[in-house]
Amino acid sequence: MAEVVSFRKGANEDGSVLVTRSLADGVLRLTLNNPPANVLSIAVMELLMGELQKAAEDGEVRVVVIASTGDVFSAGHDLKEMTEHRADADGGVAFFEETFALAADLMLEITRLPKPVIAQIDGLATAAGCQLVVSCDLAICTDTATFCTPGVNIGLFCSTPMVAVTRAAHRKQAMEMLLTGETIDASTAKDFGLVNRIVPKQYLTQVVSKYASVIASKSPLTLKIGKEAFYRQLEMQTEEAYSHAAQVMVDNMLTADAEEGIGAFLAKRVPSWTGE
Amino acid sequence: MAEVVSFRKGANEDGSVLVTRSLADGVLRLTLNNPPANVLSIAVMELLMGELQKAAEDGEVRVVVIASTGDVFSAGHDLKEMTEHRADADGGVAFFEETFALAADLMLEITRLPKPVIAQIDGLATAAGCQLVVSCDLAICTDTATFCTPGVNIGLFCSTPMVAVTRAAHRKQAMEMLLTGETIDASTAKDFGLVNRIVPKQYLTQVVSKYASVIASKSPLTLKIGKEAFYRQLEMQTEEAYSHAAQVMVDNMLTADAEEGIGAFLAKRVPSWTGE
Amino acid sequence: MAEVVSFRKGANEDGSVLVTRSLADGVLRLTLNNPPANVLSIAVMELLMGELQKAAEDGEVRVVVIASTGDVFSAGHDLKEMTEHRADADGGVAFFEETFALAADLMLEITRLPKPVIAQIDGLATAAGCQLVVSCDLAICTDTATFCTPGVNIGLFCSTPMVAVTRAAHRKQAMEMLLTGETIDASTAKDFGLVNRIVPKQYLTQVVSKYASVIASKSPLTLKIGKEAFYRQLEMQTEEAYSHAAQVMVDNMLTADAEEGIGAFLAKRVPSWTGE
Repeated sequence: MAEVVSFRKGANEDGSVLVTRSLADGVLRLTLNNPPANVLSIAVMELLMGELQKAAEDGEVRVVVIASTGDVFSAGHDLKEMTEHRADADGGVAFFEETFALAADLMLEITRLPKPVIAQIDGLATAAGCQLVVSCDLAICTDTATFCTPGVNIGLFCSTPMVAVTRAAHRKQAMEMLLTGETIDASTAKDFGLVNRIVPKQYLTQVVSKYASVIASKSPLTLKIGKEAFYRQLEMQTEEAYSHAAQVMVDNMLTADAEEGIGAFLAKRVPSWTGE
Repeated sequence: MAEVVSFRKGANEDGSVLVTRSLADGVLRLTLNNPPANVLSIAVMELLMGELQKAAEDGEVRVVVIASTGDVFSAGHDLKEMTEHRADADGGVAFFEETFALAADLMLEITRLPKPVIAQIDGLATAAGCQLVVSCDLAICTDTATFCTPGVNIGLFCSTPMVAVTRAAHRKQAMEMLLTGETIDASTAKDFGLVNRIVPKQYLTQVVSKYASVIASKSPLTLKIGKEAFYRQLEMQTEEAYSHAAQVMVDNMLTADAEEGIGAFLAKRVPSWTGE
Repeated sequence: MAEVVSFRKGANEDGSVLVTRSLADGVLRLTLNNPPANVLSIAVMELLMGELQKAAEDGEVRVVVIASTGDVFSAGHDLKEMTEHRADADGGVAFFEETFALAADLMLEITRLPKPVIAQIDGLATAAGCQLVVSCDLAICTDTATFCTPGVNIGLFCSTPMVAVTRAAHRKQAMEMLLTGETIDASTAKDFGLVNRIVPKQYLTQVVSKYASVIASKSPLTLKIGKEAFYRQLEMQTEEAYSHAAQVMVDNMLTADAEEGIGAFLAKRVPSWTGE
C-alpha cells in the first residue's frame, strides 16, 4: 500500500530523513520529520519544493497532505542556521536572501501546484510554520493546535507570513497576531479563517484522509482547472475575473471529464474520469 | 396592491411564467418559477436581466427582491439544455459561451443596478444558484436553506460562482466549498459571509419585506450614490478609494436629499425625500 | 507619570481642550473630549492629525491609543458645522471638500504612522466615528459599545467610512450596515472583524493599557518595519507582495534589534532593544 521513499539529500543526525513521503490511493503525504521544532531550514524547504515539483508531474498524485512529526507542527525558519551565517563575509545577506526567497517560492508553489494541498496540523505552527499552514489550500488541525506569528518578540516582524495571513483572515485579526505575537488556539484560528476544521487529536489523520480521498475521487483535470482559476481570478478586478472565469468554464465544458460528469449526473450514474 | 405581470417570453410547459413579478410599495419582487430546480436557463437569465434593466429605469422600483418557488432556490445552469447543444455543429462552444457570458453579465448587472437587491433563499442554492445569492447586495435565508458549489462532482469546476464566493468569504472557506463540493447549512453560510440573516421558514417573506421596506424608505438617490461607490471603491487601492469616496461625499452633500436629511436630523423631524 | 498637555488650538465652550493628551511609559493616549457627541469637527481632526504627526517623530511614543470621554465614542462629522457652511458663497463646496479630505487624510495617517494605534471604544461609534475605530490597527471595546454607518438615514451615504469598513469586514456584512443604517452591538462588530476584543466596561482602560504595554515592549524599529509592510503588501498582487516582504525580511534581519532579539531567543534571555 503505502510506499515510503527517503530522500538522498537532507537527514537528521541519526540518519533519519528530514521529510518523509508516502503515496497511497492518490494521496501524497509529506511529513516534516525533524522534531522537536520541525524547522524550515534550507534543506527542508528544498526537499518540500522538490517533492511538490515532482508531485505536479506525477499522475499518481491527486492530492498532497503536509503533516509533521512530534508536538510542534513547525517553528518556522531555522534561526540557528541563519545566525551562523552572520559570520559570512557579507554578514549573512546572501543567505538571508536565499532563505526568504526560497520560502516565498515554496508558498507560491503550493498555490501553483495543479493539485489540492491540505495542511494537517498538530501542535504549534509558528512564524513560517504558520505561513506554511495558511498557504495550503485547506487546513485541518487538532483541538490543541495553536498558531502564532511571533517575530515581533525577537525583533524580526513576520512580514512574509503576513502575506499569507492577511489574505486568509480579516485584517484586524491578522494585525493582532502580528503586533502582539501572541498564540491563538484552534478555535480562534478557525474563526479567523486560518483553518477549515478542528478535530480531536485521535481522529486527525482519519479526517484528513477522508478529505483527501473525497477530493482525490474528483477529476484531476477539473481540480487543476479550478485551482488555477481560483488563485488567478482572486488577483483580478471583478469584471476581469468574470471574463476570465467564463472562458475557463467554456474550456472546462469541452473536456471529456465534464461531458462524462454531466452525462453521469443526468443519467444518475457514477462518473468515470479519464482526466481529459 | 401587488401587480402581477407575466412575460411574453419564457413559460413553463403548463403555460405558467418562468419568472413572476410583483411590485408593491417600491419593492419589486422577482420569483424564479420553474420548479423543482428553478434552473437558470438562457430564458430565465434573459428574463431576469430584462427585469433588472427595466427596474433600473423605473422610478417606482426602490428595492428588488429575488426569490423562488418550491423547495430549491435554484440548481444553477440548465445542464440538460447545455448537454443538448453538444449536438451543435461547433460542439456547443457558442452556446456555452453565451450561457456563461450571460450569467456573468447578470451577476454584474445586480451589482450595477442603482437599487439594492436582496436574495430571499429557501431550500438549496447550488452552483450558479449559489452565485446568484452571493451576487445580491444582501441575502436572507431560512434555517433550512443550504448552499454549495458542487461542480467538481460533475467534472465542471464552479469557476464563475467562485468569483462571487471568493469575494464574499474567506478564501479557505471558499476553497473548501469548491474542492469538496459539499453542501453547507445556513449557519455555516452566515459564518462564511454568504448570507446576512437566517430566519425560520414561516417568517422568511415577512423579514425580507421588512428589510426591503426599511431600505425603500431611504432616499433613492442616496442609495444609488452609495451602492455605486461601494463596488467601485472596492476595486481600488486604499488611497485612491478614499480620494474617490471623498469626492462622492462632497457630491452627495450637494444633493437636495442630503440637505433635507441633515436638516431633518438636526431639527429632529422626519425627512421627506425628493430623490434629487 | 502621566503628562497632560493642552492644545493652544481648539477648546470647548467651557475652555476645556477638545482632545486631551497624556504620555506615560511609551503610550500616548489621545482622548476625544468634546462630549456628548465627540464630533470630528475640523478643529478636532486637525488636533488629532497634529498629534499623530508629532507622535511619528517623538521617540518617547511607542504606541498610540485613541479614546473618548462620555457615553458616545464619536458621532462622526460635525453636521451643524457643515450645515452652517451651506450659507457660504459656494454653497459649502470648499468646506465639504476640506472636511472629507481631512478625514480621509487622518484615517490614512493612522495607517501610515510607524507606531501601532489602538482604538479604545466605549459607547456609540457612528459614521466617521466608526471609520476612526476601524482605521486603527487594533480596536478594543466595551460590551455595551455599538457601531453604525447610518448616513443613509440622513440622505448622506457613509461612503468614506465604507472604505475602512469594507476593507475590514466581509462585504455582505458591510453592505448591511450601510444600506440599513442600523446599529450593531459589540459582539456583532467582533464577528464582522471591526474590533478585536470586547471587555466589561470597568476593565476597558486596563485591558487597552495591557495591549499597549505589551506592544510598547517590542522593538520600535521592528514595529515600524512590520506595520509599514503590512499595509503596503496588502495593496499588491500576491507574488509582488512576497517579493516585497522577502526583501523587508532581509532588511529586518540586518538590524541590530533582530540580531539582538534572535540572539536573546537562542540564549533564552530577555532582549534589550536599541531601536536600530
